[in-house]
Amino acid sequence: MAAGAHRRQMAVFLAAALFLAAVLLLQAANAADAGVTSKYRRKLEATVDMPLDADVFRVPPGYNAPQQVHITLGDQEGTAMLVSWVTPNELGNTTVMYGGAPDRMDMQAQGIHTRYDYFNYTSGFIHHCFLKNLKHSTKYYYAMGFGHTVRAFSFTTPPKPGPDAPIKFGLIGDLGQTFDSNATLSHYEANGGDAVLYLGDLSYADHYPLHDNNRWDTWARFVERSVAYQPWIWTAGNHELDYAPEIGETAPFKPFTHRYPTPYRAAGSTEPFWYSVKLASAHVIVLASYSAYGKYTPQWTWLQDELANRVDRNATPWLIVLVHSPWYNSNSYHYMEGETMRVQFEQWVVDARADLVLAGHVHSYERSHRVSNVAYDIINGKSTPVRDPRAPVYVTIGDGGNVEGIANNFTEPQPAYSAFREASFGHATLDIKNRTHAYYAWHRNQDGAKVVADGVWITNRHWMPTNDDGDTTH
Amino acid sequence: MAAGAHRRQMAVFLAAALFLAAVLLLQAANAADAGVTSKYRRKLEATVDMPLDADVFRVPPGYNAPQQVHITLGDQEGTAMLVSWVTPNELGNTTVMYGGAPDRMDMQAQGIHTRYDYFNYTSGFIHHCFLKNLKHSTKYYYAMGFGHTVRAFSFTTPPKPGPDAPIKFGLIGDLGQTFDSNATLSHYEANGGDAVLYLGDLSYADHYPLHDNNRWDTWARFVERSVAYQPWIWTAGNHELDYAPEIGETAPFKPFTHRYPTPYRAAGSTEPFWYSVKLASAHVIVLASYSAYGKYTPQWTWLQDELANRVDRNATPWLIVLVHSPWYNSNSYHYMEGETMRVQFEQWVVDARADLVLAGHVHSYERSHRVSNVAYDIINGKSTPVRDPRAPVYVTIGDGGNVEGIANNFTEPQPAYSAFREASFGHATLDIKNRTHAYYAWHRNQDGAKVVADGVWITNRHWMPTNDDGDTTH
Repeated sequence: MAAGAHRRQMAVFLAAALFLAAVLLLQAANAADAGVTSKYRRKLEATVDMPLDADVFRVPPGYNAPQQVHITLGDQEGTAMLVSWVTPNELGNTTVMYGGAPDRMDMQAQGIHTRYDYFNYTSGFIHHCFLKNLKHSTKYYYAMGFGHTVRAFSFTTPPKPGPDAPIKFGLIGDLGQTFDSNATLSHYEANGGDAVLYLGDLSYADHYPLHDNNRWDTWARFVERSVAYQPWIWTAGNHELDYAPEIGETAPFKPFTHRYPTPYRAAGSTEPFWYSVKLASAHVIVLASYSAYGKYTPQWTWLQDELANRVDRNATPWLIVLVHSPWYNSNSYHYMEGETMRVQFEQWVVDARADLVLAGHVHSYERSHRVSNVAYDIINGKSTPVRDPRAPVYVTIGDGGNVEGIANNFTEPQPAYSAFREASFGHATLDIKNRTHAYYAWHRNQDGAKVVADGVWITNRHWMPTNDDGDTTH
Repeated sequence: MAAGAHRRQMAVFLAAALFLAAVLLLQAANAADAGVTSKYRRKLEATVDMPLDADVFRVPPGYNAPQQVHITLGDQEGTAMLVSWVTPNELGNTTVMYGGAPDRMDMQAQGIHTRYDYFNYTSGFIHHCFLKNLKHSTKYYYAMGFGHTVRAFSFTTPPKPGPDAPIKFGLIGDLGQTFDSNATLSHYEANGGDAVLYLGDLSYADHYPLHDNNRWDTWARFVERSVAYQPWIWTAGNHELDYAPEIGETAPFKPFTHRYPTPYRAAGSTEPFWYSVKLASAHVIVLASYSAYGKYTPQWTWLQDELANRVDRNATPWLIVLVHSPWYNSNSYHYMEGETMRVQFEQWVVDARADLVLAGHVHSYERSHRVSNVAYDIINGKSTPVRDPRAPVYVTIGDGGNVEGIANNFTEPQPAYSAFREASFGHATLDIKNRTHAYYAWHRNQDGAKVVADGVWITNRHWMPTNDDGDTTH
């Protein structure tokens, strides 16, 4: 045994030395492709919430006026919309009137309502109304609050799903309700997208004592100026858990599920946290970082079926996956938190040739090269991400501007999988042109202005599977 | 770029060659410690369910006679017991009478009842009754069914938790209801344990068309002969999910949660699938492979708190973790399915110096050396399990004998982390003697006889942290 131990010690030493030599050689070879860590820093890294009397939080005037109006897709095809709002004083009317012109809202739909208590907070009357049989690419006007105070809004339905149908997405995560959140939203509005893919962490109400749910109300009033007019697709983040057994709140996602419905049933899902929608030429899959995803679980079962049977790259060439906790992140903040889900699902995503995996959670910005880490077997040691043209580009964009501030501590050196990273607030846009090309850009909030700090053409993995894109062009 | 690519190719080739050389050296050095793959094979590998008219499934005689009686601990300390049973004809009486002698059941407790539908099945009346303020190490007689048919049973409460309190556990997983299941249970009964740590997958009702829930009833009648007399501690396996959206059954764990309560609230948990109990000198933590365990989720939050604040190795020296899907398994069947949970929790379990991590799921037997795989960082490539005296011994014992048969296809060569493995049915016992020593043995079902095929002394990680145990002594 002593001789065996000695041989093992020698072998370990030799192996370590040889491995080190190999690593140094690889590093030298990769130096030409090193990622970029941007030097830009905003002047103030801290951020503060807008005060409760800020204009963006204003309660709309009029008795029992509908507030917090927001819409999301109501089905998989873009021919239905889910309209939600809150009435503060009494239930009022759950009807939505809608039509093709402000003076011709000649259709009506009847909604449902719900309320919830959270510790010492009681919500207003939360209305959800389903508008169906809509035409594609059509502007609709809609109104609610009949009997008390009527408010009217409008949206344009997305194009019919098709291989070359263009669409421009806003990508926003971890928005919160600070002055920086407001800058991010304004910059997105100025960029003019058609729909938002929201990467989780909405109001940060759980940041306040007793998870002050009034902050769910203020947040919804703040973002109404966008989300009442175009669908936002919701991903659940950790701040949606609102899990607080110390005050008796043990049902995860209680405020989120009461306030933000998703079209999960239309997607064959059985929970609101994982589902899919089709928008123009994009098939968007939303995954749940904070639900079960082990083999055999409902989410695992659903995703397997979704990828095998419901994704059709001929009909909707772009396959985009949304998740809150990133699988590739080189910030010290939340470093490797997404590992378990990556281990569970990365092989599937690579096999499916997903184009993009978008995440929030980390309060900075990062874009990866096309990499995969799927050769691993517990005994083979092959656990290092490698360049892989089959793999998606990973984007972390949890930099909406919330009160927790910027995650300004990257791991060094920048890992080979990281193409570009910067510790600033901002948002991104994904402008899908046709079945082969989309222009992706990240817009930094630069002291009040928006500046494209990272932009790249992304080619479709189904239609241009071997094209080597995803490199920085900024 | 072409020169860079060529340099990279050369470097990759060199690295591969050097790595191969290192691996060969390490393999040679480790050869002396190679694990054992047992050559024993039972004559028939297939197994079949006992027919519905088998004696073990017999409905007890008498109108509305209580059946499927089972008990589990009712609190963390062993001074309460949860008694459950089913009445088939009508609700009847939910009262349990109990006391220190068969003719002196002078105490009574009032239970609750529930029922459930599952597709075209409707359960009987499921009773749950909580017996509290029991004395430790005391035999109690109990009876139920008053007004119709009374049946009486008995149990002995576990010793008061304390550092040298001995206890003998049976370890059973994936039992099912075949002729082999019956052999396993009989062998366990002959070995005479005080309580069973059950590693998940109970009835395999989901193996039948429409998840025939009558098989939940037959299973509970089958095991009554043990579990009515001593507490079984339940772990939820994948066959407890009973998730079948195709027939409208979308609530995971519906039959299991209606039938098998756990003392999770006493353990500060908010779901029945993860919790802990203290039994003599053991602190037993039950984890849920099929619930969420990502960072921030309720299970993650609970386990962090449990390990930091509720485990006291001076009071209960033995820290044992139960889980269904194994973290170390070298069988091709379910290979690496436990990876995501291992990635999430292994560091905590090593830091806590857990003594044993017990799993089911794989229908064969395996015991590991003390190994860990916690040095991994996504960029460092350190992903190979290494010997680690801080680490628990991992045991996979999903070989209770269910209808799916034996998993008879091990990966080759046997990985260095695997100490002993054999594709047979059986069960194990863990005989805790005092704070430092426990004798662990795996009992193969050898064509009707039970044979100790693997036995080893296990020393406590808190009280003998550096002792190099866990090696085969069979």
